Amino acid sequence: MDHIIKAIHKYQSFAISSHRNPDGDSIGSCIALGLALKKLGKSVTYIMDDIPQKFEFLDEVKNFKVDASEHFDVVVCLDCSNIAHLHNSQDLSNGDLIINIDHHISNTNYGGLNYIDSVASATGEIIYELICKLSIPIDKDMAVALYVAVVTDTGNFKYSNVTYKTHAIVSELYKISDIYWKINTIIFDQNSYEGMKIIGKSLENLYLTHENRISVIALSLEDLKEYDNVDLEGIINYARDIKGVEVAVFAKEVEPNLFRVSFRANGDYDVSTLATIYGGGGHSKAAGCTIRGNSLKDIMNDITHNIAKDLQ
Amino acid sequence: MDHIIKAIHKYQSFAISSHRNPDGDSIGSCIALGLALKKLGKSVTYIMDDIPQKFEFLDEVKNFKVDASEHFDVVVCLDCSNIAHLHNSQDLSNGDLIINIDHHISNTNYGGLNYIDSVASATGEIIYELICKLSIPIDKDMAVALYVAVVTDTGNFKYSNVTYKTHAIVSELYKISDIYWKINTIIFDQNSYEGMKIIGKSLENLYLTHENRISVIALSLEDLKEYDNVDLEGIINYARDIKGVEVAVFAKEVEPNLFRVSFRANGDYDVSTLATIYGGGGHSKAAGCTIRGNSLKDIMNDITHNIAKDLQ
Ligand SMILES: [Mn+2]
Ligand SMILES: [Mn+2]
Repeated sequence: MDHIIKAIHKYQSFAISSHRNPDGDSIGSCIALGLALKKLGKSVTYIMDDIPQKFEFLDEVKNFKVDASEHFDVVVCLDCSNIAHLHNSQDLSNGDLIINIDHHISNTNYGGLNYIDSVASATGEIIYELICKLSIPIDKDMAVALYVAVVTDTGNFKYSNVTYKTHAIVSELYKISDIYWKINTIIFDQNSYEGMKIIGKSLENLYLTHENRISVIALSLEDLKEYDNVDLEGIINYARDIKGVEVAVFAKEVEPNLFRVSFRANGDYDVSTLATIYGGGGHSKAAGCTIRGNSLKDIMNDITHNIAKDLQ
Repeated sequence: MDHIIKAIHKYQSFAISSHRNPDGDSIGSCIALGLALKKLGKSVTYIMDDIPQKFEFLDEVKNFKVDASEHFDVVVCLDCSNIAHLHNSQDLSNGDLIINIDHHISNTNYGGLNYIDSVASATGEIIYELICKLSIPIDKDMAVALYVAVVTDTGNFKYSNVTYKTHAIVSELYKISDIYWKINTIIFDQNSYEGMKIIGKSLENLYLTHENRISVIALSLEDLKEYDNVDLEGIINYARDIKGVEVAVFAKEVEPNLFRVSFRANGDYDVSTLATIYGGGGHSKAAGCTIRGNSLKDIMNDITHNIAKDLQ
C-alpha cells in the first residue's frame, strides 16, 4: 500500500479501469479514486463501458470514456482479478506502471504494484482506506461512490463477506452525506414494469418437487416472447428464497430446444458438481449449464432426478 | 438514562414487554435487555405474545409468557409509544415502577422513568447503549438479538432512519458474532411457497395507469381463495418499486364487496390526504382505508381518478 501511495504522489496522469460489464463496486471504486486523484491535481481518465443505467445518477459517469489511445503514467485496475477480464486490455500498454487493487482471492497479481485484500467485502473498502491514507478529505460525491461500491458487493449488507470493517466504513460515510436511502432505492428498488410482469409469470410457473426440497422455475420461448430485453438475472432468487428449499433451478429457453439453466443451493448441496454433469460449471452455491433437448419438462425431470439422488 | 441505570441496579424483579404484534425491534430489544439483566442476577419475565414464526430461532423466545399475574419491582416497556398499544396493559399494575424506553417520537411518556430517543433507528440502538453503560459485556445471543432489532426497523439498512450510529453499533456487533448473514436470510428471505404464488398472482394483476405514474394491484376474493392465511403485507412494495411510479395502490377484497385498500407514495405525493377521502388515514408515504362497493374495477377507477387530480 505504501508503494502505491508513493507512486500516486510521484506520477501525474492516471487511467482508471475495471472489469468488463462493470458492477457497482467497479464503478463506485473507480469514481471514488478518480475524484480523490483529481483533488491531488492529477489528470484522471476513466476507461469504462457498458454502465448499467441505474448507476448513471453518479455524475462522474459522464466523464467515462470507452477508449483512450494517449499515454498514461499509470493505469490503475480496480476490482479486476485477471488482465483478461479488463475492460480494454490494450490500454495497459499505454501506461508506464500498472497498479492492481482488488479483493478477489483469485487475482493474478498482474500489476507492477499489486494490493489484494480478499477479506474486503468490496474493492470500495480498500479504496476508502487508500483515500484515508492519502489524507484526502472524503466529499459527498466520493462518499456516495464508496457507498455504491460496498452496498452492491455485499448485496445490501446481506452477504457473508460483510465484516465489522464494512459497517465501520459505512458509518463514516454516513457522517458525510445523508442521501444513502435514496441511492439504495435507485440501486435495488427501481424495477421496470416488464421486469415485474416476468417475475409474476415466473412465480406462476414455480413449482416444488421432491418433498419441497427442490424448486423449479422454467420459462419457454412462448413465456418469454413479450419480454425481449428484460433482465432475468435475479429471478432464480425467488425460487431459492423459499423455506425448506435446498436447491433452486431456473431454466429459460434461449432458442428453440436450447435451454440455459441456473442452479442455486441453500445449505450444503454443491451445485457445481450438478452443473458439471451437463457440461457447465460454477461455484458450490451458484452454477449453470446449457442443455439441448426437446422438452423443458423432460429436462427438468432429469435435472431434479439427478439432484434428488444426492439429497438427504 | 442515569436514573434508569440506578433503578436497574436497585431493583430485583423485572417484567419486560412491548407493543402487541411485536416486530423484530420489539422482540430483539426485549431479549437483549433481558439477557443483560440476567447477567446482573436479576429475575426477568418476558410478557410477549404472537411472535412471528421467523423470530422463533431466537432461543429466548421459548421463555416468553403470554401473561403473568405476579408482582414485579419494575415493568420495562420497550418500543411501545402508547400504553394502549402494550401487549397486556393490566401487567403495568403489577409493577412498582414503569420504565419506558422507545424511539417513537409520538411516545406519550407514560412511564415513571422515560427515555425516548427519536433519532435512534430502532429501540435496539438505545438498548445497545444502555447495556454498554451498564458495563455488561455483550455476548453472541445479545448481539444477534440487537442485530435483529436494528435490521428489522431499518428495512435491512435501507430506510432514511439509518444514521452513522446505526452502522457503528452494527460494526461492534460484527466483532462479537459472524452469523448475521444467516440471520438476515431467516428474517428477509425465507418465504413460503404460497407467499410466492400470491406474489405471482399479484404481479399478473398489476397494471399501470395515468402515464405509468400510478400502479395498481387488486385482488378479489376469487383471487385469494386458495391463500387463506398468507401474509400479503409486503406485496404493495412490488407496485411501489417500479421506476416512474409515484403512487401505488393495493386492494384486497376482505369480504364480499368490502375492500381493504393501501397506498404508498414515492416522492412528494401525500397519500394520507387521499386515504382521508375514503375515511381512512396514515402517513404521507403510507396510508390506507376500507371501502364498500360493488366492483373492484369501479373503486380502482375512482381512486386512480382522485390521485391523478393531484398529480403534477
Ligand atoms: Mn468487487
Ligand atoms: Mn421500533
